Amino acid sequence: MKIRPLHDRVVVRRMEEERKTASGIIIPDSATEKPDRGEVLAAGPGKLADNGERAPLQVKVGDKVLFGKYAGTTVKIDGEELLIMREDDLLAVVEG
Amino acid sequence: MKIRPLHDRVVVRRMEEERKTASGIIIPDSATEKPDRGEVLAAGPGKLADNGERAPLQVKVGDKVLFGKYAGTTVKIDGEELLIMREDDLLAVVEG
Amino acid sequence: MKIRPLHDRVVVRRMEEERKTASGIIIPDSATEKPDRGEVLAAGPGKLADNGERAPLQVKVGDKVLFGKYAGTTVKIDGEELLIMREDDLLAVVEG
Amino acid sequence: MKIRPLHDRVVVRRMEEERKTASGIIIPDSATEKPDRGEVLAAGPGKLADNGERAPLQVKVGDKVLFGKYAGTTVKIDGEELLIMREDDLLAVVEG
Amino acid sequence: MKIRPLHDRVVVRRMEEERKTASGIIIPDSATEKPDRGEVLAAGPGKLADNGERAPLQVKVGDKVLFGKYAGTTVKIDGEELLIMREDDLLAVVEG
Amino acid sequence: MKIRPLHDRVVVRRMEEERKTASGIIIPDSATEKPDRGEVLAAGPGKLADNGERAPLQVKVGDKVLFGKYAGTTVKIDGEELLIMREDDLLAVVEG
Amino acid sequence: MKIRPLHDRVVVRRMEEERKTASGIIIPDSATEKPDRGEVLAAGPGKLADNGERAPLQVKVGDKVLFGKYAGTTVKIDGEELLIMREDDLLAVVEG
Repeated sequence: MKIRPLHDRVVVRRMEEERKTASGIIIPDSATEKPDRGEVLAAGPGKLADNGERAPLQVKVGDKVLFGKYAGTTVKIDGEELLIMREDDLLAVVEG
Repeated sequence: MKIRPLHDRVVVRRMEEERKTASGIIIPDSATEKPDRGEVLAAGPGKLADNGERAPLQVKVGDKVLFGKYAGTTVKIDGEELLIMREDDLLAVVEG
Repeated sequence: MKIRPLHDRVVVRRMEEERKTASGIIIPDSATEKPDRGEVLAAGPGKLADNGERAPLQVKVGDKVLFGKYAGTTVKIDGEELLIMREDDLLAVVEG
Repeated sequence: MKIRPLHDRVVVRRMEEERKTASGIIIPDSATEKPDRGEVLAAGPGKLADNGERAPLQVKVGDKVLFGKYAGTTVKIDGEELLIMREDDLLAVVEG
Repeated sequence: MKIRPLHDRVVVRRMEEERKTASGIIIPDSATEKPDRGEVLAAGPGKLADNGERAPLQVKVGDKVLFGKYAGTTVKIDGEELLIMREDDLLAVVEG
Repeated sequence: MKIRPLHDRVVVRRMEEERKTASGIIIPDSATEKPDRGEVLAAGPGKLADNGERAPLQVKVGDKVLFGKYAGTTVKIDGEELLIMREDDLLAVVEG
Repeated sequence: MKIRPLHDRVVVRRMEEERKTASGIIIPDSATEKPDRGEVLAAGPGKLADNGERAPLQVKVGDKVLFGKYAGTTVKIDGEELLIMREDDLLAVVEG
């Protein structure tokens, strides 16, 4: 199933993070706050500015992004939980 | 009865989803949260931008769409419950 | 008495609906939620856009319209209760 | 004393209405909700649009108008209570 | 000490009003609500519109004005309590 | 340490005021409300208007200004408590 | 790992401050309010203005900045806690 986000929205898959305590114990994700980073799976065409033109988004498919903990709406696609949020909820792109 | 949504509104028929538990038991819809997807039955001409021009909507009749759980107003047309919402309440179009 | 709504307002007469239960008993209107549809009796010239021009309304006198349950202000004209609301409170025009 | 309302404001004198019950008893005004109609005594030059031009008001001195029950600020001029409100608080002009 | 209000602000001196009861007893001001009128002592150059131009105010020094009861900020200048408010808090100019 | 306020912000040093009671007793500042005046130590370049141009501020370094009691954020620079606020929090310039 | 903040956002590393009491005792940071200053590590391209153009930020990498105590979102990058905030949360640049 293919998703086409509208306007300035993006589809993001959360990147689960292994959290290790100092002594190396892996903390299962649920015990920690929801990770605030993920990968862009699809990006909309951008929001319409007042002058009727569309400003392209600053992120593209494949970008690793940081976002606010409570950003976005959860949807289930082919059994997988994904996030749909506005580009404005994205804080930064993480490279390398 | 034909509905002509105004400005940036769309008419959506909720797509009931068969929810199966792991053991295959079909969960009647009422037991689960209202499905957050549906089909566009009618689309308005778009919202008037500040410059007085109308920006056409990004969705069209027949599109399968995702929307926020509490989006839209319920209306009864020819005995059927339909949703009328703004395009901005739509998250994405789902294809395939 | 003639009413001339201002800017983007419209005057609407609620259309009472006969609600019948399955067994054909007519439910008096008061027992059900207020009907959310009506007929446009008068329409304003439209709202002034930022560029100083007036965008004409999308509805005209005689249109059957759907609106939110709590939309509009009730006024009494020649003893009849009518609703005055903004076009933005109207969801759609119903034809046929 | 002459009042010159500013920008998009208007001065309105409430029109007291004789309310009669079915059996013809006149209900003193205080017993009913404040009447929601009145006469325009003075009108401002209109609000400044973003492009720096002033859009003239749609009402003029002498118009009979309908307004929301709680609209406007009460001021006492020469011992008479008048209402000053924005044109946007006016719902419609009543003619005839 | 001279005050130069900024942008769309004005400096107003409240005009104390002798309030007399029907039988002529003068009500000291404190016993009644704060008077809602005063005289303009200084007026700013006006607010910057979106197009970068300044729209001059509609009031000038010496105008008698009506304003909302709770409008403005009280400041003490040379021992006298004055009000600084935005022009938008002013309802009308009173002449004669 | 030099401070360069951003956009439409200004840096203000509160002007402590000797408050004397009628009998000449000097009230230490803390006992009275925080003074609402001060001196501009630094001013930003102004806010970006919608048309992308910067509108210069109406105040400059050295101006004595009046501001709302709770305006601004307190910062400590070289051990001194200063206020940083937006120009819009300033009410007027006091001269003489 | 390199961070590319979006639009008008900046990445800031908080500058821990040695706080000494009068008698020279160093107050561990946690005992005092969070410091409100830091260094800009990365800056976005600026926000899109209504006319579709991007207004460059007023701060650059390496600037020492003051910001509101509760500004920004904390993110962990390579084990270090950094702040991502909008330029509008920055109060001033501190030089020297």
